[in-house]
Amino acid sequence: MATRTIADWVENLTFEAIPPTVREAAINSFANYVGCAIGGHRHEATQKLVQSQASLSKFPGGCSLLGGQMKADPLQAALINAFSSHLHDYDDTHLSTVIHPTAAVAAALLAYVDWKSADGEKVSGNCFITALVAGIEVECLLGLAVYPSHYDVGWHITATVGSIGAAIAVAKAMKLPVNQLVNAIGFAAAQVNGMRRHFGSHAKPLGVAFAAQSGLQSAILARNGMTAATDAIEGKRGWIECVCPDSEKAKGRLDEFLESLRSGDGLESDQKWEVQKNTFKPFPCGIVIHPVIDGCSQLRSEGLKVEHVEAVMLLIHPLVLELTGKKSPKDGLEAKFSVYHGAACGLLFGRATPADFADAVVQETAVLRGKIKAVVDDSLRPDECRIIVDKQQGKVEKHVEHAIGSLAKPMTTTQLRQKFLDQVEPLLGTEKGPVLFQRLLNLAFIENVSVLLGWEA
Amino acid sequence: MATRTIADWVENLTFEAIPPTVREAAINSFANYVGCAIGGHRHEATQKLVQSQASLSKFPGGCSLLGGQMKADPLQAALINAFSSHLHDYDDTHLSTVIHPTAAVAAALLAYVDWKSADGEKVSGNCFITALVAGIEVECLLGLAVYPSHYDVGWHITATVGSIGAAIAVAKAMKLPVNQLVNAIGFAAAQVNGMRRHFGSHAKPLGVAFAAQSGLQSAILARNGMTAATDAIEGKRGWIECVCPDSEKAKGRLDEFLESLRSGDGLESDQKWEVQKNTFKPFPCGIVIHPVIDGCSQLRSEGLKVEHVEAVMLLIHPLVLELTGKKSPKDGLEAKFSVYHGAACGLLFGRATPADFADAVVQETAVLRGKIKAVVDDSLRPDECRIIVDKQQGKVEKHVEHAIGSLAKPMTTTQLRQKFLDQVEPLLGTEKGPVLFQRLLNLAFIENVSVLLGWEA
Repeated sequence: MATRTIADWVENLTFEAIPPTVREAAINSFANYVGCAIGGHRHEATQKLVQSQASLSKFPGGCSLLGGQMKADPLQAALINAFSSHLHDYDDTHLSTVIHPTAAVAAALLAYVDWKSADGEKVSGNCFITALVAGIEVECLLGLAVYPSHYDVGWHITATVGSIGAAIAVAKAMKLPVNQLVNAIGFAAAQVNGMRRHFGSHAKPLGVAFAAQSGLQSAILARNGMTAATDAIEGKRGWIECVCPDSEKAKGRLDEFLESLRSGDGLESDQKWEVQKNTFKPFPCGIVIHPVIDGCSQLRSEGLKVEHVEAVMLLIHPLVLELTGKKSPKDGLEAKFSVYHGAACGLLFGRATPADFADAVVQETAVLRGKIKAVVDDSLRPDECRIIVDKQQGKVEKHVEHAIGSLAKPMTTTQLRQKFLDQVEPLLGTEKGPVLFQRLLNLAFIENVSVLLGWEA
Repeated sequence: MATRTIADWVENLTFEAIPPTVREAAINSFANYVGCAIGGHRHEATQKLVQSQASLSKFPGGCSLLGGQMKADPLQAALINAFSSHLHDYDDTHLSTVIHPTAAVAAALLAYVDWKSADGEKVSGNCFITALVAGIEVECLLGLAVYPSHYDVGWHITATVGSIGAAIAVAKAMKLPVNQLVNAIGFAAAQVNGMRRHFGSHAKPLGVAFAAQSGLQSAILARNGMTAATDAIEGKRGWIECVCPDSEKAKGRLDEFLESLRSGDGLESDQKWEVQKNTFKPFPCGIVIHPVIDGCSQLRSEGLKVEHVEAVMLLIHPLVLELTGKKSPKDGLEAKFSVYHGAACGLLFGRATPADFADAVVQETAVLRGKIKAVVDDSLRPDECRIIVDKQQGKVEKHVEHAIGSLAKPMTTTQLRQKFLDQVEPLLGTEKGPVLFQRLLNLAFIENVSVLLGWEA
């Protein structure tokens, strides 16, 4: 009954039933998404993708590419906007599943909104927020059900649950009835994108991009009356059994989570929604590196000079080395999976912005990287680290209990705004950037979300 | 090294290295594909898909829809032509893996050929056959490596390996160098479509359709310089580990199979290529039902009258009930997974053509279906069955040792031609149908395969 329970909940969810703090979390997530998508658009990899797709489909279509001038058809817009938003690994994180929840969902939803607007149909800010929340909640609950075995075996969970979340968001915005919602979930569940093997290559953001496209496509097929299994998630030889080695346990967990959906209008008011557990990255790289960057940046601002550093010892959670153990990254993409490059950026520049993952900067950090050693300490949490620096004279140490951007130390709206502006101002300039951020914060009051996309004009 | 070994083999494969009997098997496979794609186009489900996609992308594009008048962009043409070819479950079968090998590969390849032709680039028949063979061989070897655990857990193997085969075929036709071939394989491996849960719904052929589209897309991304992991198939947390519960064994099997590719120009001459093991279905439904249809049809032609039938006992291989045990199919799609409907068609009509899977016919078989009992007999092969009919007076029995269409009793060219004409003549008429079949048999002599697609004009 899981598939049907989800569809029922989605059909019945109303904007009014979503508590204000949850709406705010969704708006922050979307604003952060837009900044990341614009920030990633001009990257060479996104441009290759745009060229590739423009050669296939007829560009221009009717849908905006965030940060670009061309227009594409809705499937291509969903693909490209999800790709650029995830390319820098700078988007949001649902920490307990390491899902980046907004990329696929928002990219699909925005493409839909933009497409319908060309036909004169408006999707309001409230409708958009409701659809976004529906997609993110279900995506994260599915992720929680299959995590960690699903992730351990190799699936890139952001992409695998992303297609289902995206399908739900678009189907909700379309106001599909429950039987069509079930089919939309089915189609999305039958398209499983993204594997961890591809981390460090274009295929990582591409997996998320395919998820956005698959999700949008799934909702459209469902609306056109095409059919899927009615129990695609929990049924025998369905999604959970295919993608999750401990599938029986995962089914049990999912049923438990869905109880909380059944128990009221949405979730109980004293319970946090998953979108409220979303966090935003201060640094454009694997989140497990953040404590190290934070700590190294703090050491620099406290007066440590890099020319005095003889050796650096990083004591870190085991996942850090597993995910980001690249000692000698060969370019900026690989450097996103190098705790050594992250530490070096902190010590050298006191920051790690998108510009610090340029290929040339990765060369610059090579000497310092050679002095850094990373050691696993099982007693540490993932958002914690200890750093010990041997100097020519003496030692300094830093203990980061919770990295900036973690749930315990979230980015403030001011910090989010600065992150947004860092990404969009090179393109939009210093006047339009702040105006766009303010409009995004006012999302709930917008009559037609598609007009948000007119800023390039 | 599996990914790289595959890419090397694909890069080096030449038309000359492919033995004539292998070429012939590929040509038969393609001709059968074209017949099925044309035959499936007018079905309501394909028409829904066409409408759905036409609303998204700008139709007309430059690529033909087999059996249709509209033209689509190459991604949509690959999607729709794969869908219609697999919709009736009437396409080919690689028996040892239950892969339908041609659908995704040919649909992607044909869309590519057609697309390039609009740009004035010709893909010759020889190049086409070489690409098709490359795609099918690799697809089936991957399938053999992961079968049966991959299929048992729930993946629809036709779709999951189809995307990789399709990527290889298109990449070969593009003449991509080995490093880009590796990337094409990587992208395709990161998009896993299709689950057995969806058998009996539109999501079954849709999974194969997504595979065709994913494969074409993957080759194009690779040609545009985008990157994937270089060991996407065999690497840690790569394709095999994600999709196959006994992944270590599967990796070992794949390495063995790839040895045979390494050992010469293609495969040793005394060894059958996988495409030679391809079979063609005489009946448009799950292949495990074929012995029963064959036997029941024989009983009818031997004089059994349906009005004398009191009870029918089918003794069958265990897989038959597992895959096609629907006792009361509610429509034509479900009837494809009903051994009871298949047996009833044999007894009532002495055949099971696409027309016999119309919803109305499924109603007609209900009474007779009620008299049929299916019993598993572990001593039988999948292409074997025993049928015992209780009549008002006495009993008749039939033992089918090998069903028509099996490897031991393959369809003749004349039978293939008749199957082709059954499917295309309602659309093309009795003059054009035979001409097209003849042109397909002469595929090796065609300068530009795209001109084949001009028949609707």
